[in-house]
Amino acid sequence: MASIELRLEIEDLYTAYAATLDDDDLDAWPDLFTEDCLYQVIPRDNFDRDLPLALIRCESRAMLRDRVTAVRETTMFEPRYVRHLISNIRVSSETDGVIEAQANYAVFETMTDAYTRVFNVGRYLDKLVREDGRLLFSEKRCVYDSVLVPNSIIYPI
Amino acid sequence: MASIELRLEIEDLYTAYAATLDDDDLDAWPDLFTEDCLYQVIPRDNFDRDLPLALIRCESRAMLRDRVTAVRETTMFEPRYVRHLISNIRVSSETDGVIEAQANYAVFETMTDAYTRVFNVGRYLDKLVREDGRLLFSEKRCVYDSVLVPNSIIYPI
Amino acid sequence: MASIELRLEIEDLYTAYAATLDDDDLDAWPDLFTEDCLYQVIPRDNFDRDLPLALIRCESRAMLRDRVTAVRETTMFEPRYVRHLISNIRVSSETDGVIEAQANYAVFETMTDAYTRVFNVGRYLDKLVREDGRLLFSEKRCVYDSVLVPNSIIYPI
Repeated sequence: MASIELRLEIEDLYTAYAATLDDDDLDAWPDLFTEDCLYQVIPRDNFDRDLPLALIRCESRAMLRDRVTAVRETTMFEPRYVRHLISNIRVSSETDGVIEAQANYAVFETMTDAYTRVFNVGRYLDKLVREDGRLLFSEKRCVYDSVLVPNSIIYPI
Repeated sequence: MASIELRLEIEDLYTAYAATLDDDDLDAWPDLFTEDCLYQVIPRDNFDRDLPLALIRCESRAMLRDRVTAVRETTMFEPRYVRHLISNIRVSSETDGVIEAQANYAVFETMTDAYTRVFNVGRYLDKLVREDGRLLFSEKRCVYDSVLVPNSIIYPI
Repeated sequence: MASIELRLEIEDLYTAYAATLDDDDLDAWPDLFTEDCLYQVIPRDNFDRDLPLALIRCESRAMLRDRVTAVRETTMFEPRYVRHLISNIRVSSETDGVIEAQANYAVFETMTDAYTRVFNVGRYLDKLVREDGRLLFSEKRCVYDSVLVPNSIIYPI
């Protein structure tokens, strides 16, 4: 079992992750990843069958920053709020400084003048490393349950 | 970082908060607040723009008790169950005995003979103080994402 | 208050519970229970009024295994993914090695070619015991808020 301190530190990272997205603080979002990170948003059907096709695939922090710019500049993107509930976090393994962690998530979406609805649920399959004393995501896979997504997902999950 | 014991104690307060509302144990709900507390249910749009208009605003524990009486005596209030999921709790600061804490929440609502639906999601922005050894809310702001609410909210969030 | 280690161990049990169901690892699911366990899925209306009628009632691990076989062999059962968010876990008491614990849960369901929806929310009312060093459920009651369930529930909650 991971130490209590480490577990709480991992929880804090997930909470910071949720907060940057929920607060629309997108500029801070790439800072939660390592420089050469992998970030994927992939449907469960593909992931389970080892099919590589993902909705989003970024292979560095620089690509995450591009993504943020794209979200900011997409005029087609109707304003909305997102809200993450991340729970059932677990540490699967810890080898050579790489922590494998998983969590279940539900993202709720609220468009202007509309009721809140379930937007996307699934699980995070992540790798975490420590850099300059801080935990960061070196890999983050958002494996979502539904093949269908309401609107194109361009906002990070 | 707050001590482990304090974090767990804060988690317990949120869990007790959820339980009093979910169990319809409304009479116990004001006891989770200080005598001169502030309790607000406010849409995110207003909160973010510093607009004071809130759906509910109570400025003392006595006003919370009035609120409970109002809920109990409102014959227009169709019976329903609520269910809170509170996650991603974080302690923002701790100064002079005042703890600032945040959490994400989702409230699900089940009316008689209806399916459960998402009722309200948002975040809690709270201040906690210790009185007679127990943590209590001295301020609780329920900042919800949707301007629209299904039915008038008269039940606490 | 339960010790920190025990709280985390209980959290881990709930996370393992969610994972076996969400990963469709149903064969591992009965192993989280004791041999002579009680497992119930019961609507809140019945539970609160002490009415015994439950949607599912299994009185041993063997009956849980039968249940798994039934799920596997039911050709009417349309494929779907489930996703559990379990939060606000609390330990109510610990007496003679029996731990009483509660949690709130939300289960989301994703059918093929459909959006994810709220399937079932409620609370777990559980008893846990330690066998050979591992915590197991000796009783698990899934008390759900809605009388209505979309589709017949044959999958465990």
